[in-house]
Amino acid sequence: MRLLVVNSNTTESVTTRIDAAARAAASPGTVVETVSAPFGLPLIVSRADWLVAGPATLAALAARRGQYDAAVIACFGDPGLDAAKELLDVPVLGISEAAFHAASMLGRRFGVVSFTAALRPMFEECLAHHGLVGRCAGFRMGPAFAGDPGLVAEQRADLLVDLCRQSVEQDGAEAVILAGGPLAGLAPVIADRVPVPLVDGTAAAVRMAEALVGLAPAPRPKRGRALTGFAPELAALYAAG
Amino acid sequence: MRLLVVNSNTTESVTTRIDAAARAAASPGTVVETVSAPFGLPLIVSRADWLVAGPATLAALAARRGQYDAAVIACFGDPGLDAAKELLDVPVLGISEAAFHAASMLGRRFGVVSFTAALRPMFEECLAHHGLVGRCAGFRMGPAFAGDPGLVAEQRADLLVDLCRQSVEQDGAEAVILAGGPLAGLAPVIADRVPVPLVDGTAAAVRMAEALVGLAPAPRPKRGRALTGFAPELAALYAAG
Amino acid sequence: MRLLVVNSNTTESVTTRIDAAARAAASPGTVVETVSAPFGLPLIVSRADWLVAGPATLAALAARRGQYDAAVIACFGDPGLDAAKELLDVPVLGISEAAFHAASMLGRRFGVVSFTAALRPMFEECLAHHGLVGRCAGFRMGPAFAGDPGLVAEQRADLLVDLCRQSVEQDGAEAVILAGGPLAGLAPVIADRVPVPLVDGTAAAVRMAEALVGLAPAPRPKRGRALTGFAPELAALYAAG
Amino acid sequence: MRLLVVNSNTTESVTTRIDAAARAAASPGTVVETVSAPFGLPLIVSRADWLVAGPATLAALAARRGQYDAAVIACFGDPGLDAAKELLDVPVLGISEAAFHAASMLGRRFGVVSFTAALRPMFEECLAHHGLVGRCAGFRMGPAFAGDPGLVAEQRADLLVDLCRQSVEQDGAEAVILAGGPLAGLAPVIADRVPVPLVDGTAAAVRMAEALVGLAPAPRPKRGRALTGFAPELAALYAAG
Amino acid sequence: MRLLVVNSNTTESVTTRIDAAARAAASPGTVVETVSAPFGLPLIVSRADWLVAGPATLAALAARRGQYDAAVIACFGDPGLDAAKELLDVPVLGISEAAFHAASMLGRRFGVVSFTAALRPMFEECLAHHGLVGRCAGFRMGPAFAGDPGLVAEQRADLLVDLCRQSVEQDGAEAVILAGGPLAGLAPVIADRVPVPLVDGTAAAVRMAEALVGLAPAPRPKRGRALTGFAPELAALYAAG
Amino acid sequence: MRLLVVNSNTTESVTTRIDAAARAAASPGTVVETVSAPFGLPLIVSRADWLVAGPATLAALAARRGQYDAAVIACFGDPGLDAAKELLDVPVLGISEAAFHAASMLGRRFGVVSFTAALRPMFEECLAHHGLVGRCAGFRMGPAFAGDPGLVAEQRADLLVDLCRQSVEQDGAEAVILAGGPLAGLAPVIADRVPVPLVDGTAAAVRMAEALVGLAPAPRPKRGRALTGFAPELAALYAAG
Repeated sequence: MRLLVVNSNTTESVTTRIDAAARAAASPGTVVETVSAPFGLPLIVSRADWLVAGPATLAALAARRGQYDAAVIACFGDPGLDAAKELLDVPVLGISEAAFHAASMLGRRFGVVSFTAALRPMFEECLAHHGLVGRCAGFRMGPAFAGDPGLVAEQRADLLVDLCRQSVEQDGAEAVILAGGPLAGLAPVIADRVPVPLVDGTAAAVRMAEALVGLAPAPRPKRGRALTGFAPELAALYAAG
Repeated sequence: MRLLVVNSNTTESVTTRIDAAARAAASPGTVVETVSAPFGLPLIVSRADWLVAGPATLAALAARRGQYDAAVIACFGDPGLDAAKELLDVPVLGISEAAFHAASMLGRRFGVVSFTAALRPMFEECLAHHGLVGRCAGFRMGPAFAGDPGLVAEQRADLLVDLCRQSVEQDGAEAVILAGGPLAGLAPVIADRVPVPLVDGTAAAVRMAEALVGLAPAPRPKRGRALTGFAPELAALYAAG
Repeated sequence: MRLLVVNSNTTESVTTRIDAAARAAASPGTVVETVSAPFGLPLIVSRADWLVAGPATLAALAARRGQYDAAVIACFGDPGLDAAKELLDVPVLGISEAAFHAASMLGRRFGVVSFTAALRPMFEECLAHHGLVGRCAGFRMGPAFAGDPGLVAEQRADLLVDLCRQSVEQDGAEAVILAGGPLAGLAPVIADRVPVPLVDGTAAAVRMAEALVGLAPAPRPKRGRALTGFAPELAALYAAG
Repeated sequence: MRLLVVNSNTTESVTTRIDAAARAAASPGTVVETVSAPFGLPLIVSRADWLVAGPATLAALAARRGQYDAAVIACFGDPGLDAAKELLDVPVLGISEAAFHAASMLGRRFGVVSFTAALRPMFEECLAHHGLVGRCAGFRMGPAFAGDPGLVAEQRADLLVDLCRQSVEQDGAEAVILAGGPLAGLAPVIADRVPVPLVDGTAAAVRMAEALVGLAPAPRPKRGRALTGFAPELAALYAAG
Repeated sequence: MRLLVVNSNTTESVTTRIDAAARAAASPGTVVETVSAPFGLPLIVSRADWLVAGPATLAALAARRGQYDAAVIACFGDPGLDAAKELLDVPVLGISEAAFHAASMLGRRFGVVSFTAALRPMFEECLAHHGLVGRCAGFRMGPAFAGDPGLVAEQRADLLVDLCRQSVEQDGAEAVILAGGPLAGLAPVIADRVPVPLVDGTAAAVRMAEALVGLAPAPRPKRGRALTGFAPELAALYAAG
Repeated sequence: MRLLVVNSNTTESVTTRIDAAARAAASPGTVVETVSAPFGLPLIVSRADWLVAGPATLAALAARRGQYDAAVIACFGDPGLDAAKELLDVPVLGISEAAFHAASMLGRRFGVVSFTAALRPMFEECLAHHGLVGRCAGFRMGPAFAGDPGLVAEQRADLLVDLCRQSVEQDGAEAVILAGGPLAGLAPVIADRVPVPLVDGTAAAVRMAEALVGLAPAPRPKRGRALTGFAPELAALYAAG
């Protein structure tokens, strides 16, 4: 199967990380292509960022329409996810959505760990949106971060291990999600230092996408409409219905 | 005070209705200006529609920045609301947000009535987002609608009265929200046929905006950032922080 | 419009504070009259206090029936509020109700700060009653207090600023409610020391009352009944239906 | 043990019913005394009624202070319950509280049946207050009622059997509460016509009160205060702390 | 009445404690018999333990069928409780179920205290199962424990008093449950050192069982079925329907 | 990978159905073995059935320990699932768990359809246990069923299509779960008659198990203990820790 992975921000170093994590997680028969959002912002932090990252993500998905069997939105917060599910006729998964569901199947209560507290409100709203608040043991986040998102995983690895352990020992987490696109690929590196399963959203989404392809096809009603003021490929997607 | 009202869709006949309803509700000292979204879609129905209507709404708000003391997003579903609250330094209210809060103060349980069932999922998610599910007595929606949104209020007035009465008698509603931008201005027309307060989102938002102006000012931290690929006024708003 | 504000306790120094805060928040055309409960208790702290403050508040409202266009119950906990909404044919707002709704429109998550932990259970039950638990970031309360409630706002101003900052920094509050009738008027005094909007329940209730007057009138069914054993004005209100 | 049962309304025919039901449920060593509220209303239906019934109930409890080992508030809605628990140093139970807890122990999901829909809002708020909404399978209520509350149990017995059966068959109730003081004593009369346990609030409260007496004594801190404007016995209770 | 109490684990020293606590709580006319699970595990800690303790508990209940008027499952976590309620035609109560309900009637919010954190996940799931999460002020648990469960109550009495006080002072508990079969009988020993009611699950269950016997009989439909692979008495219970 | 599928009941015709559905869903490299519970009951309907099916399921899992890389418990209700996750060091998935999570990723709200209302309470408790009640649009169940569970899928296919359509049209389901082991394999047969994705729990569990294998390994602490009174293989599993 062909899998398109979209990094919803414009930072190429993060896209490279995500691509490597996605390829490492993919099954042998899966061909992975990873792209950055064609426009938008270098890091998605606030609610406003999340909103504008949505059409940017849709534009990337629309530009390659017909060239993939499933897609992954690789930004923790899942910008554009619900819209993409409505507009496309292949499975689309967000990395937070996949992480929450995978973690729920790996442990009764999961913790969420990330590198900066600035992301917590977006993550909390995303968790509530997916309806799994009751399965979450709590959040553990690092302090403010102002460097290169493509390097934060290595720079804050020790801190993240500590946060994971606190999640297990103090919050009772039975699985821990390493949240945020910039942390893609970190889980296998630090897994042996944390006593419960570590979930990487990108890896989870890749494998969940493989699982859903072909599981439950459904005809999608067409209702082509004229969208103005957005990228041509997004308008084309709307026109196609 | 100066109040900007933005219709998040591009249908001028709906904008005209909203403008009339807003002016009718405004206090003497309030100057109302109502505009349509500069681009996007003629009616906001689906989750995808809601997403793309967000930047369209922000573009309208950004284009007149500095020319209003408060703003209302006049689309039931509140596209772009959270982002606008982050980006602007004046109060911004959505008409669903205002309707939910006003109705909660007028009755313990409120019903939500609208002209077409197609809007229900968006309304339900909007209600959940605002955290007032526990105050809602239920939804009563009319059948599918394919005509001019600017005329539906009059065309379906009798049906809407029936739905309001069902909400009161069968669901126990103590106030009823007439939901959806296209129903702006209908509440006073049918109020004497329904035995509980009828809440018009546009009117509620106008009066709530008047109430909030000056109530609780707060300095907003500036963090100007470069947004690419969107309308220049929206990029300017991001750059201003 | 004419607005009656009722302090549900019998402490005149608190009534004086509330009156000043109400007048400061009122629009030019609003005539404010503030009264104490005609009997009851000097401070409302426990569930039992809340109960007996209800009929005391109703008696104050009943005594001036027909002389106001809207009323505010100025005791955080809203004693008698639901009954007053049933019995009166003008809008009645509680200061906690108004604070919770106003704060929800000013920030996604609001904190609640007050001068003594003894009030927390009553505030928590009041919050749950209004259905907005999901919007609350948490409570921050000062230690036990035994002095004059009319002076506590000034005496504990520095402590309250600290609690507000903790609410923002540790709980993630995007708006903070200064809760309790005795804190009326404090918000503008300390607003420049807290980085998010501060909500004063009295001010919020005054402005929300102005907003609701005329927004959604509804005929109220009359069902006069004989109430015995309470103040004559309350019996008269019941007899009037 | 000595048990005081207070009917929170002033209708003697209902008090007589409640007294008979309480005596039928009491264990051999329990001495039951049942009294009406000394003032207030003949039937408790609305939120306003509930409020004024609270001090009336407290007055009855205060008048006999020291003469009982436990007390039951025999009005479905439990007016004055939380206050009574704070003010008295013996166990006080409400008949709805007892019914909800007993029914929860008799079946995973319980239905609530009563003679008139007018009581539903009060019952729902009472259920929410006790925190057992998740155990409730739903409400089934008869139509409006305007007769003698002391006779409604017999007059509507067949209707109530039908509602109980609907609760079992359509809502999945595994136990059914016959709710409302006026239905005291009906459960054993119709029990053989309903296929699940029927819970009478009065009987449940009597037996729960017997169970709690002596189970868990705790010293209650004294804090005598001056209450004005209420019946002398209630002021005395407050003064005693 | 005859009451069978089943300790769901196989540790006789715990059974002895439970028996003493049950007899101390029972009314004069109640004959108590306490038995250990006939097989299974010496201590029930994990979810797997809980599962296998279920049939072991049912086997004990089945072996004495017809010889008791009510039964108590004396293991905090209530293994086998729902099944026992379905299979037996007398009231069956779990000690956690009884403790949660009794504590709810003794205080608005109850704390849960136990000797080892290892039990917390099981207790939390049990609390959620009974639907009373909203009434719980929080858990306070001691550290890991590896000694004789029959002695832990005395060995950790001081620690448990401290945890109870923290529950009251920091969590706002108005009643505290001493949770876990091994703590049976401790409550009266330390009650004078804690300022709120202390609830012993065994005592609560004994008294609740007395309360429920005869309260609400209901015919139980018979549907005899063949169960294979379990103890003969359990198969006999299934065959009897 | 090697996948063990356990039918938690003893009906071979159901096991045969499940085996066919599992093989049809498995990826090319997956070797599927399906077994019945070695003892227990022919159909799992009640809470008591669910309990005794747990050790029966564990016995099947224990008997083949070391011979599979992941396991599926193929009984809607997931008996023994939490225990199996604790005791085994490979991923174990229940078919209801997998169906709920897969359906959540295929649509915002999923319906649950099955052949007999008798299963509804067990399904509802299972859904609540997995924490996804908020994602469920409702249940649609057929009438009582007394025939061969191995044939019900074909016998009631038309009825099930109708229930699926009601779930979509009246409840707003965006995906529908065909619930219950006896319906394994029906989804692809009727998929073209329902306008949203149909989720077969067995197929979903097989693909989710493939996805989770290797995703997030974690060392499992060993704590061997002596379990008495159960099948030797189950005791061996406990002894191994």
